[in-house]
Amino acid sequence: MNQRPALASLAEWLINQRTAVLPDDILHIARRCLIDTVGVMLPGSTRSVSEKIRQTLPLGEGEACLIGLDRRTDPLSAALINGVAAHALDFDDNCYAGFVHGSAVIIPAALAVADTCGASGEQLLRAVALGSECQYRLGMALDNQLYHAGWWTTGMLGAVGACAAAAVLLDLDSGQCANALGMAIACASGMKAIFGTDSKPLLAGLAAQRGIMCAFMAQAGMSGPVDVIEHPAGLVALCNNRRLIRKWVQEPSSQWCLREPGIDVKRIPVCLSSHAAVDALLCLRQQHGFTARDVTRIECNVPEIVCINLKYDRPVNGQQAQFSLPFALAQALIAGDVTLSHLDDANVLTPELQTLMAKVSSHTGTRWSEATLATLAPEGAEITVYLNNGNSHSHFVAKARGAASAPLSDDELSNKFMQCCQSVMPGDSAHKLLTHLWRIEEPANQHMSSYWRATS
Amino acid sequence: MNQRPALASLAEWLINQRTAVLPDDILHIARRCLIDTVGVMLPGSTRSVSEKIRQTLPLGEGEACLIGLDRRTDPLSAALINGVAAHALDFDDNCYAGFVHGSAVIIPAALAVADTCGASGEQLLRAVALGSECQYRLGMALDNQLYHAGWWTTGMLGAVGACAAAAVLLDLDSGQCANALGMAIACASGMKAIFGTDSKPLLAGLAAQRGIMCAFMAQAGMSGPVDVIEHPAGLVALCNNRRLIRKWVQEPSSQWCLREPGIDVKRIPVCLSSHAAVDALLCLRQQHGFTARDVTRIECNVPEIVCINLKYDRPVNGQQAQFSLPFALAQALIAGDVTLSHLDDANVLTPELQTLMAKVSSHTGTRWSEATLATLAPEGAEITVYLNNGNSHSHFVAKARGAASAPLSDDELSNKFMQCCQSVMPGDSAHKLLTHLWRIEEPANQHMSSYWRATS
Repeated sequence: MNQRPALASLAEWLINQRTAVLPDDILHIARRCLIDTVGVMLPGSTRSVSEKIRQTLPLGEGEACLIGLDRRTDPLSAALINGVAAHALDFDDNCYAGFVHGSAVIIPAALAVADTCGASGEQLLRAVALGSECQYRLGMALDNQLYHAGWWTTGMLGAVGACAAAAVLLDLDSGQCANALGMAIACASGMKAIFGTDSKPLLAGLAAQRGIMCAFMAQAGMSGPVDVIEHPAGLVALCNNRRLIRKWVQEPSSQWCLREPGIDVKRIPVCLSSHAAVDALLCLRQQHGFTARDVTRIECNVPEIVCINLKYDRPVNGQQAQFSLPFALAQALIAGDVTLSHLDDANVLTPELQTLMAKVSSHTGTRWSEATLATLAPEGAEITVYLNNGNSHSHFVAKARGAASAPLSDDELSNKFMQCCQSVMPGDSAHKLLTHLWRIEEPANQHMSSYWRATS
Repeated sequence: MNQRPALASLAEWLINQRTAVLPDDILHIARRCLIDTVGVMLPGSTRSVSEKIRQTLPLGEGEACLIGLDRRTDPLSAALINGVAAHALDFDDNCYAGFVHGSAVIIPAALAVADTCGASGEQLLRAVALGSECQYRLGMALDNQLYHAGWWTTGMLGAVGACAAAAVLLDLDSGQCANALGMAIACASGMKAIFGTDSKPLLAGLAAQRGIMCAFMAQAGMSGPVDVIEHPAGLVALCNNRRLIRKWVQEPSSQWCLREPGIDVKRIPVCLSSHAAVDALLCLRQQHGFTARDVTRIECNVPEIVCINLKYDRPVNGQQAQFSLPFALAQALIAGDVTLSHLDDANVLTPELQTLMAKVSSHTGTRWSEATLATLAPEGAEITVYLNNGNSHSHFVAKARGAASAPLSDDELSNKFMQCCQSVMPGDSAHKLLTHLWRIEEPANQHMSSYWRATS
């Protein structure tokens, strides 16, 4: 039976949505993704991996802004460089539809194309929402198995979201769009073997670049494999053990992935696996008023995946500290929270912190074998604090603040943005940029480029 | 047991060979690959897919020549554009070590970097030889299974050859080289679903571009996953059913893949599956002196893969004609051979050709089930020609002329080059370029750039 290729249906849905009225809450989610991503991109642009990428690339002429720099270039270079910056700190958002870092790829891609074609803020926002949704639905169609098989979904599926956002901005017709998405999937790439190397942000940037390149190419008339999802030598056969839940892409529903499962925003700049534990500790600290000096021991009962992900018991630099439960808890207890400045290598080595880290231990108790907890609290934590005075206090947190089910308020999101900008621009510039971003689709702010100019 | 990553060994071998004396015959094979690839790239650069790519890309400034154009640009753009041109006609070489189109990716990559760093012809040739060998050995290490699993090896492994050639030219140390190759593999891509679309040459070009980008990035200090071959979420686990013949990359031997299995050069511009049949028919034609008018029927007994690959019985344009056994045989009988000009859409539709095509039939006889034939004649053919006078003549060809085991002479290779250039440059310019290429490593011809200037 010759079914219509899933990609043709998905492309048609996408292009139809281009002129549809999108729900307000969907646009608001996209706006929050944009703010959060620009926020983490700004300090990300000053990291050494970002500098190395800029050093390597021959930058062409163009209108696309390099975020954090007073410089414009061609859209392909901008998408790559800004994509690397967006993921350089690993402080960007996640979506459980596809198990991906979504915005770090989609938003640099959308910005580069929007700058280039002079799109309005409203058009940018729509492209971000639809590009994201397109990518997340493909992730659902793959039954969320791609990540578990060993593929780095952000690199693989990211190109799809980037391409879809570009297709919306470039006003491709649905045929061109299907060809563009076909090309993007055929050259999708990413293996989890990259963890711990500069290649992780590199692959996020490459996905952004490749996605928009495929959209430009389809616009120029290039043909891609429209049947690449179900082809015997295509995505599902090669990468997903032939598993495909066709309804997510064949008859795109009114159920938005941006709403459910939604977007998880990171509140603190460390591995997501430590977030619930930090929240639990901060809650106890506030309730009982103890300080670091009062504590003799902190015991963490966490799922196995948390123990695996947080592999540094005694981190000696900022990069290791991002993947350390003792660091996250000790730092939160000393300073009341964990911020970017705490990831400074020198800070990680201070005796006070190192001494307190030695008091943290963790194990995986039997409670985590309950089936419901795998969904309700995949990276949850139960924390017990033992004090000098003989008292002990326990608290359980299922999902950290920032998760889609416990979202940051708009004010908290703004605070994260301002904190991110601290090291890279004056407070008033940051505040001006933030105000622009919250109102990005207002007609008075017609062209995106004016915002980025305001940052320099 | 923590074994040393295979990639570290391969990189060390590669960098050691950078200053070693390479065998003369290996350099001669590389020289022939260079000539053949530049030859097919020149008309390839005029195809519509090449034009579309050039239209899409923002070209940066630089020293890298766009073959066939009087234009220089940055190496990343040049590698992509020239790579697309090299594979646009599907007339480029193949290697059974890895089942890949090798040179179409490696040579554009090496040319772009050589132009950029002002390498000598000798350095270019060495980079081509070593880049090729590195890629083919990885193909052997994967037990030649990658292609059969559905991956388009030219896109996947091509980036490795391109990266290795660039690493040699950029004088990376073995640590940088291992990081570069790790990045190149981590973002390797290519699914056979692309067949029949513009994405096939696109992915060849992207592999060339990505390969040299990773080399430049490693030079700037970027880290890649050095253990990406054997990592649980790496190349062998994700793409090759965990199969790895470690000796090919862990202890690189003195057995050169460039020598054995060697390089298959296409003598005529149609699918390799029709080459043996054309050779058999031309042999009968010469022996018995018949013409198209004398023939009532041509019967082909060919392996199943030939029937699968040559899927157009009645092609109506040049692209389909490349994958048509009736076209290849009818054209060869009428004109005495098949050339690029015969792929003109109008030519394919001429009544004489269409009538003769209808007289060609093919089937898969029992002889192909003999185990030895799978190796000796994987795309062999037995042709029987029935004549008006009641006579019939049969001939069997195991491997076509141009295959590594029945190589074209240097003169025949030169003839192919001149034929390729026919439509794109005056004969004396083509001859001058060809003469330069045969002598490319002579010290008098120090810098590559002078050659390419000579073409314009």
